[in-house]
Amino acid sequence: MRTVHVDLQERSYPIYIGSGLIDQPELLSRHIAGGNVLVVTNETVAPLYGERLGHSLQGYRTETVILPDGEQHKTLATADRVFDRLLAARMDRQTTVIALGGGVVGDLAGFVAATFQRGVHFIQVPTTLLALVDSSVGGKTAVNHPRGKNMIGAFHQPRCVIADVDTLHTLPDRELRAGLAEVIKYGLIDDYAFFQWLERNLQKLLERDGEALMYAVEQSCRNKAHVVAADELEAGQRALLNLGHTFGHAIETATGYTEWLHGEAVAAGMCMAAHMSRELGWINDSALARATTLIESAGLPTRPPALPAARFMELMSIDKKAQSGRIRLVLLQGLGHAVVTGDFPAEALQRTLAHFSGQAA
Amino acid sequence: MRTVHVDLQERSYPIYIGSGLIDQPELLSRHIAGGNVLVVTNETVAPLYGERLGHSLQGYRTETVILPDGEQHKTLATADRVFDRLLAARMDRQTTVIALGGGVVGDLAGFVAATFQRGVHFIQVPTTLLALVDSSVGGKTAVNHPRGKNMIGAFHQPRCVIADVDTLHTLPDRELRAGLAEVIKYGLIDDYAFFQWLERNLQKLLERDGEALMYAVEQSCRNKAHVVAADELEAGQRALLNLGHTFGHAIETATGYTEWLHGEAVAAGMCMAAHMSRELGWINDSALARATTLIESAGLPTRPPALPAARFMELMSIDKKAQSGRIRLVLLQGLGHAVVTGDFPAEALQRTLAHFSGQAA
Repeated sequence: MRTVHVDLQERSYPIYIGSGLIDQPELLSRHIAGGNVLVVTNETVAPLYGERLGHSLQGYRTETVILPDGEQHKTLATADRVFDRLLAARMDRQTTVIALGGGVVGDLAGFVAATFQRGVHFIQVPTTLLALVDSSVGGKTAVNHPRGKNMIGAFHQPRCVIADVDTLHTLPDRELRAGLAEVIKYGLIDDYAFFQWLERNLQKLLERDGEALMYAVEQSCRNKAHVVAADELEAGQRALLNLGHTFGHAIETATGYTEWLHGEAVAAGMCMAAHMSRELGWINDSALARATTLIESAGLPTRPPALPAARFMELMSIDKKAQSGRIRLVLLQGLGHAVVTGDFPAEALQRTLAHFSGQAA
Repeated sequence: MRTVHVDLQERSYPIYIGSGLIDQPELLSRHIAGGNVLVVTNETVAPLYGERLGHSLQGYRTETVILPDGEQHKTLATADRVFDRLLAARMDRQTTVIALGGGVVGDLAGFVAATFQRGVHFIQVPTTLLALVDSSVGGKTAVNHPRGKNMIGAFHQPRCVIADVDTLHTLPDRELRAGLAEVIKYGLIDDYAFFQWLERNLQKLLERDGEALMYAVEQSCRNKAHVVAADELEAGQRALLNLGHTFGHAIETATGYTEWLHGEAVAAGMCMAAHMSRELGWINDSALARATTLIESAGLPTRPPALPAARFMELMSIDKKAQSGRIRLVLLQGLGHAVVTGDFPAEALQRTLAHFSGQAA
């Protein structure tokens, strides 16, 4: 087992990365407060891992909420149903909420943990690659609003993350690839050595080699933990983690959060960010090609769906990374060197949007 | 103008206490981030102070949400309507939410500010005595759930509080008295000198003497700020502020939050806590009589409504101050000396509940 320590003063916590961790009750019990546990999971994950997690929770009074699968259920109304279950079961302030599932389950369960009785303990047991490398670090919790993704939420750090890479064996190929988009992101942002490792080892990850997966998860979590520790509440540099996300959220909003997986939208978004960085003269053709090729070899889309440039602009301007209407983007000044900036000529963005709207998937 | 500084490290903020403060734009502008402001108020307060606050907000892009008046609207559904307004108006992360009103408006607007885009700036302009002395310090935000009051919420500190005591001139008598319950509470918890001052000056407060009100608000805020600074997230000693509240919440739940004002329920709850403290031999008959007399002279109830003791117990056990089913109470070891404890013989509580159920209002 490897442990990545997320350093946030009194909110610090460990990420345990390994094989068979769900079956180790002592990892959980170290971080559970009180005797009450609420497990939040979904109808896909519950049959796969619900019983094993239940075994590790013997001795606790445990309630389980099984949500329908899908981003469309990450709403305030679903959260309200979970609150109702908590209160009907007389769960008190000393309750620990455990998220067993992917990003949707983690975000929603985290939001419930953040706001139930003004905050209770929270543990993440992620079962998708995206959740392992993204949602498990940073304390972001949220639900969607019909007018925008993740518009309602809170920062609420987990007490620990149980990152059992065995769970990736049941993950559909498409979701594995979507998770790799975020893994590649960490290489692009701030870790050229990891980017190079990915260029060499992508095939192993696609084949679900256990050692390679553990390494990729560990490096991703370390990279994210490093950025988050420096900027817990996303005042500045943490926005680096949004590489590809402003473009990506526009894609997700345009397609109603159903056709594109988050990681797929981020993959196309990173290609757009790389293209725009080349337009600005910040990276050269070779760097753009390497970024795009790595994303393509992961079986991920490198272009957005067909959308007029004006519509893309409109969708980007509601994104919450916009500050008072001005669009800020994460762009590349090199492979492994991303920057957050609102300081670019509008024409560069226009050229990139025109390029991709004329070359749509 | 007097200023009470609430000391919470990087979340520290000032409470400005004085007359005519709503008309001073510079107090607000010091603490507004960005150019967008959302004012949340209600249909009673909006006609009284909405326009004056609007004048002080010239130069900002301001949206106003006017809620119906009443605790029954402090729900997740109402919060969702406010989120919708924020998003429809394209308000971004740099928005400042201003609560203009009493505790309900403050709690709901604070919850919206805590969770909109994972947290935006928040300013309180309280217009009731209860809000001036209670909600303005501590960062508690919440909405109610059908199964319990304040069950969904977050800790979110305001950037400043504009405590304009002139607003108390339009407050109905009954609400002024309800606010005095919390003022008396601060004397009982930890400030015997203030308790004595209240014994001498209660009449002036009932007559809305400006100087007396400012002094009472200042002392109350100082007392609360002192407790909150030592325990921001209510892990321990902050629970002292719940004197009368566990009994009081049971009264409010039993009466559906409509018949009793919060302060009235707290007043009766404090009398019950004082009675139980006498039952335990912690305070003598004279102290019990002085506490009860002060509450009675404020025109506040000193007894709960007719409720069987068993029903009272049931209502108290769902209160969120209960830890894993065990009831913890705030009791008195003297006037100006409250303690939080779960360590008392069950019979003492039973005797108090029996006493009051046989002597109901």
